[in-house]
Amino acid sequence: MAISLREARIIIEKALDKGRALELKPLSVVVLDAGGHVQAFEREDGAAPGRFAIARGKAYGAVMLGMAGTAQMARAEAQGYFMAAVNGVYGGQVVPVPGGVLVRDTNGTVIGAVGVTGDSSDNDAIAALSGIEAAGLAGEI
Amino acid sequence: MAISLREARIIIEKALDKGRALELKPLSVVVLDAGGHVQAFEREDGAAPGRFAIARGKAYGAVMLGMAGTAQMARAEAQGYFMAAVNGVYGGQVVPVPGGVLVRDTNGTVIGAVGVTGDSSDNDAIAALSGIEAAGLAGEI
Amino acid sequence: MAISLREARIIIEKALDKGRALELKPLSVVVLDAGGHVQAFEREDGAAPGRFAIARGKAYGAVMLGMAGTAQMARAEAQGYFMAAVNGVYGGQVVPVPGGVLVRDTNGTVIGAVGVTGDSSDNDAIAALSGIEAAGLAGEI
Amino acid sequence: MAISLREARIIIEKALDKGRALELKPLSVVVLDAGGHVQAFEREDGAAPGRFAIARGKAYGAVMLGMAGTAQMARAEAQGYFMAAVNGVYGGQVVPVPGGVLVRDTNGTVIGAVGVTGDSSDNDAIAALSGIEAAGLAGEI
Repeated sequence: MAISLREARIIIEKALDKGRALELKPLSVVVLDAGGHVQAFEREDGAAPGRFAIARGKAYGAVMLGMAGTAQMARAEAQGYFMAAVNGVYGGQVVPVPGGVLVRDTNGTVIGAVGVTGDSSDNDAIAALSGIEAAGLAGEI
Repeated sequence: MAISLREARIIIEKALDKGRALELKPLSVVVLDAGGHVQAFEREDGAAPGRFAIARGKAYGAVMLGMAGTAQMARAEAQGYFMAAVNGVYGGQVVPVPGGVLVRDTNGTVIGAVGVTGDSSDNDAIAALSGIEAAGLAGEI
Repeated sequence: MAISLREARIIIEKALDKGRALELKPLSVVVLDAGGHVQAFEREDGAAPGRFAIARGKAYGAVMLGMAGTAQMARAEAQGYFMAAVNGVYGGQVVPVPGGVLVRDTNGTVIGAVGVTGDSSDNDAIAALSGIEAAGLAGEI
Repeated sequence: MAISLREARIIIEKALDKGRALELKPLSVVVLDAGGHVQAFEREDGAAPGRFAIARGKAYGAVMLGMAGTAQMARAEAQGYFMAAVNGVYGGQVVPVPGGVLVRDTNGTVIGAVGVTGDSSDNDAIAALSGIEAAGLAGEI
């Protein structure tokens, strides 16, 4: 199973809705497929220009390692040189903090990841999860 | 003036509609802002996973050089080493073919670019232009 | 559907068998998944040490572009600067010649690619295709 | 003396068998030659797509420095900037933790390295060592 474009649009729309409901700062939301490749992205007006790379970096590490942002952050805090080395082998494309959320199908298989950036990392993760669940999928923050 | 997220969504939706109307292969469409940074992107189901980088590469060169895809291709064919050198200074992120379309406001100022990939370069440019015009903006292919 | 490790082993074993039957030079064979990530690889004794990168480069471009090695080579010969630019956006990881073979499931969906290097590009492609078909899958050279 | 493909296959098969016997998470196993180049690799079904780079990074540092993963980790914890600098000169391709295991011949000469990733670093090293010993070679974890 894969995330369809229709589902990716729901994830982004509902993640942004959640951000507006919680009065978060302007958000940027990316949806990556099971190979870490970009399916869809939106950056809200007022967000800083470099937000795409942060959003993708949160989601990319989640897919590539099979480890969501919260677990990546724990590892980075316990063993910083390990996550630095992981980033080396992935070309510096990993941002190991919450807001990178794994997406699983009904069998538990990872089918992609969502990356949100713009507010606090924890709020970013809440918005991502809200979008994923609105699409009928399961998220791991 | 800048491309708003609302306008970027129209550009993408209408570019994809054009692709369906012309029965093109699955398309991928990116909207970049006036600094060459990603605002929005969608990849249709069935498109190859690496299409984001091609779409962005078409639009990125257009913004950075202020030269649309058709003019870039002409330059590449006339003076290949020049476009190769341009790619050197831009980190290899430029794809100099049609489908990278400049977006101008009513004063003629470049406010971003659209990159489309998936079908022939010429058809990609037609789809991009269709989306830009549907948003009430002017495109240069 | 995805290529299983069991299927990847069959692909590699049978591609190497084909190379021995045709008395080809020592071969290297990689299997990539639908996201372009390495699933399995073997390099025969006597092959040059750098063959992994060539094998992967042939298969990587096939997956990322959805275009097999023969079509990539045709494009590179017709429009060299385009394939050079594609390689720029993919980090220089594409080797656009035969021997990069797309793998499709029974619906025609691309589920990965096989890259073979060591003999002539055409013989490499023959060995790859032989392995893919032995695993009950369809290949596009 | 070099690791033959026949020996590399035994190393991988027996490392994966060990993982199954210990009920570890899905493993990925790479065998590098004495120059740090990939000879063989397998990724078990269910492993995250980015595991090849981690496995290779563990083994690559071992070969290039002549120092196994456990010693690399000790150095990283004692003198983090040194291992970061090492990674600079090796292009960011070193992951300095257990699971990168040196392979020696009967004279004690380093003839390659094995990298395993998927479970805890210590369990990864146990699986790697099991494979190396099954091939009649000596490992240093």
